[in-house]
Amino acid sequence: MGNTSTAAAVPATGRAAASTALLTDQYELTMLDAALRSGAAHRRSLFEVFARRLPDGRRYGVVAGTGRFLEELTRFRFDEAEIDWLRSERIVSEKTLHWLADYRFSGSVSGYAEGEVFFPGSPILLVEGSFAECVILETLALSVLNHDSAVAAAASRMTAAAADRPCIEMGSRRTHEESAVAAARAAVIAGFSSTSNMEAGRRYGLKTGGTAAHSFTLLHDSEEEAFRAQIETFGSGTTLLVDTYDVPRAVDLAIEVAGTDLAGVRLDSGDLLVQARDVRAQLDGLGATNTRITVTSDLDEFAIAGLAAGPVDAYGVGTSLVTGSGAPTAGLVYKLVARHDDNGSWRSVAKASMNKASVGGRKYPVRVLDGDGVAVEEIIGIGSLPALDASYRELLVPLVTDGVIDDSAVGAQGVTAARERHAASRAELPATALKLQRGEPALVSTFQES
Amino acid sequence: MGNTSTAAAVPATGRAAASTALLTDQYELTMLDAALRSGAAHRRSLFEVFARRLPDGRRYGVVAGTGRFLEELTRFRFDEAEIDWLRSERIVSEKTLHWLADYRFSGSVSGYAEGEVFFPGSPILLVEGSFAECVILETLALSVLNHDSAVAAAASRMTAAAADRPCIEMGSRRTHEESAVAAARAAVIAGFSSTSNMEAGRRYGLKTGGTAAHSFTLLHDSEEEAFRAQIETFGSGTTLLVDTYDVPRAVDLAIEVAGTDLAGVRLDSGDLLVQARDVRAQLDGLGATNTRITVTSDLDEFAIAGLAAGPVDAYGVGTSLVTGSGAPTAGLVYKLVARHDDNGSWRSVAKASMNKASVGGRKYPVRVLDGDGVAVEEIIGIGSLPALDASYRELLVPLVTDGVIDDSAVGAQGVTAARERHAASRAELPATALKLQRGEPALVSTFQES
Repeated sequence: MGNTSTAAAVPATGRAAASTALLTDQYELTMLDAALRSGAAHRRSLFEVFARRLPDGRRYGVVAGTGRFLEELTRFRFDEAEIDWLRSERIVSEKTLHWLADYRFSGSVSGYAEGEVFFPGSPILLVEGSFAECVILETLALSVLNHDSAVAAAASRMTAAAADRPCIEMGSRRTHEESAVAAARAAVIAGFSSTSNMEAGRRYGLKTGGTAAHSFTLLHDSEEEAFRAQIETFGSGTTLLVDTYDVPRAVDLAIEVAGTDLAGVRLDSGDLLVQARDVRAQLDGLGATNTRITVTSDLDEFAIAGLAAGPVDAYGVGTSLVTGSGAPTAGLVYKLVARHDDNGSWRSVAKASMNKASVGGRKYPVRVLDGDGVAVEEIIGIGSLPALDASYRELLVPLVTDGVIDDSAVGAQGVTAARERHAASRAELPATALKLQRGEPALVSTFQES
Repeated sequence: MGNTSTAAAVPATGRAAASTALLTDQYELTMLDAALRSGAAHRRSLFEVFARRLPDGRRYGVVAGTGRFLEELTRFRFDEAEIDWLRSERIVSEKTLHWLADYRFSGSVSGYAEGEVFFPGSPILLVEGSFAECVILETLALSVLNHDSAVAAAASRMTAAAADRPCIEMGSRRTHEESAVAAARAAVIAGFSSTSNMEAGRRYGLKTGGTAAHSFTLLHDSEEEAFRAQIETFGSGTTLLVDTYDVPRAVDLAIEVAGTDLAGVRLDSGDLLVQARDVRAQLDGLGATNTRITVTSDLDEFAIAGLAAGPVDAYGVGTSLVTGSGAPTAGLVYKLVARHDDNGSWRSVAKASMNKASVGGRKYPVRVLDGDGVAVEEIIGIGSLPALDASYRELLVPLVTDGVIDDSAVGAQGVTAARERHAASRAELPATALKLQRGEPALVSTFQES
């Protein structure tokens, strides 16, 4: 564990200094109100975050957002402004408002390390404390994890398809402006090399990139004037966008203006495979053999795979990435799985409803590995660690201990650690996990009662 | 036009007080840098936001986010923290940093009123000013409009399918925590009656609602204890969740505990149509004829339509709403369509690239109405208002005039106005527009050169 900070500390990262406490569904506050009145609010409780299933045809999920959740937990405070608004709306009683004004999460959180892969039933986050202090974190935890995990899962498929070629995140414009920052962070965790988003660069220390759009060419009286302006400003180490008018003419012009040292050209329309081949041949013919070709324009993991045989040096990915490539939310839920009874003993609890049943009890998940270190199964012990002969990895790591947050999971260092964790966990999966076609989850997760 | 505030004023709404200036793609800043160097940055320019197409099979789009964009524009400032970070990353020159430090948008913005419906090619936002001051707003404008319009378009289909029955927004947990607030706002613009999201209630004055989750029942030693706790706290004017264990038993218990005055019960699993009928019969049999039935659980516009014949009083919608019901982004782009030449005369400009061509020139869109006031066509004049005999509505309204923002478009009053605009514009469409099945856009938009 790295340095720690209490949940009361001001976070080092993030421009949003204000309270996150109202990023909450009303029913959490009304449940709190009623449970404080009945006295049950003080029962020690254990909530679990898990997905009942993966998005249709996906072979693994990716845990992302954990660090962000911890950052937002430090700002989960009912300050005067929040209390005044709740009072004016008469949502809860005065007694409950007093309780909220003093709220500091003093419980404990453990979970799959950010970047870890997961499967149906994997208990990726456990939140333990009084019912009162845990129940009001439901929406915030799910919002962060559902969004970020959806983006990371799509990003992981894209970086797997791109193999050694870098993927550049450029989807900010296709999603909410704050989702964009979180999406860039999640993409980098899942292997993207950089982002176009400035705020993500600032907030999480991510590598950023970007040069010019078509409007820059159209602003000038000719493509040549635009190219000259860009080269005069940035030198030949820049990337010129060559598809505003006529690609072959623009490529000639680019090398004429920038010389054969030109770092790169970008293609953003048309048949990218055909164009990449033509442009590569043209560049080589002009002696610009080191000039790189970046392609952008509605790429997803399938388009990236389809360009594998083409002379493409980098992929810029936007819409599909930030919208989870068909699965914009991860389907994670936050469920009470155990609580104290009147005697202070733990009782497993579970909902019995049709099509939404859950498994009660405290979980101890492990990933079982074969002799070659390949993951072969996920076993989720209920009540205790499963008894196993095989080699395995325990999957839960401590994130918050009695209200004290593990700093190594937040900020820029959290992103770096999560990126490493993801690369290692994905590499450990059987090869079939990386197939893009629809299939079953790559590992079966099995519950094992102790 | 209502009251106005300059773009320099602090907004009345929104908890995020910090700068929005880095919610931007790097290439906007590098284009600015190169254009300041070439001198072209000062050319007066006109950028346009439009969608080349609607999401597959959709019959109309809904403009949403305009008010939020204006709110964020007032906070688009490069303060010391932003300048210091850009300097440390060496993204632009010192000269450009000085220009950014003084940045205040002094141009003009017009657009379709928030809540208006749109079609392929509709110029929903026009941003005019120097190239420099307009180009750096691209990402922020698109992020806000693409997200909010996607949610509003889905929401509009849902409220159309629900007819007179209220739809309640409860999707916060399935999307990024800040997207959740914007999604609630967009949903209400498109006819939703309320939201579960507290922050959306506070920030935009939206009606909020919510009572209890399954965890509240599981926390207590029996369903009866849980129901009693809720009724003691909130009285019989609350909604009890009746599907944690066994629905018929829970309905009996609910009326036993709350009496026949119980305001409502909620069903969140199983076959909702069958259950709603059974529960209605049971409630009526118990004399609770005014107790309302709210259904939730993965509803979308098709499920809502499928429940039309059932005794359902309200729909709670989550995942499908906040993810745009299959279309999580609106596909809006921000393109330079005209700029001054060296003589200060306007020149239309357009990109010629394959599959991404755009139409240059300043647009004057109108909606043509027949004798019954039904919309029959959208005509987009290029260069001037189209010459028409028919009755029509001009679609552009002023939003920012020489840097001064129209306050009637922002905050809570902006949401109210947009909600009214949406209801009126949707009512004006031909009846086929409201079909849920995949189809063509309800109106053809035609460009007309003057």
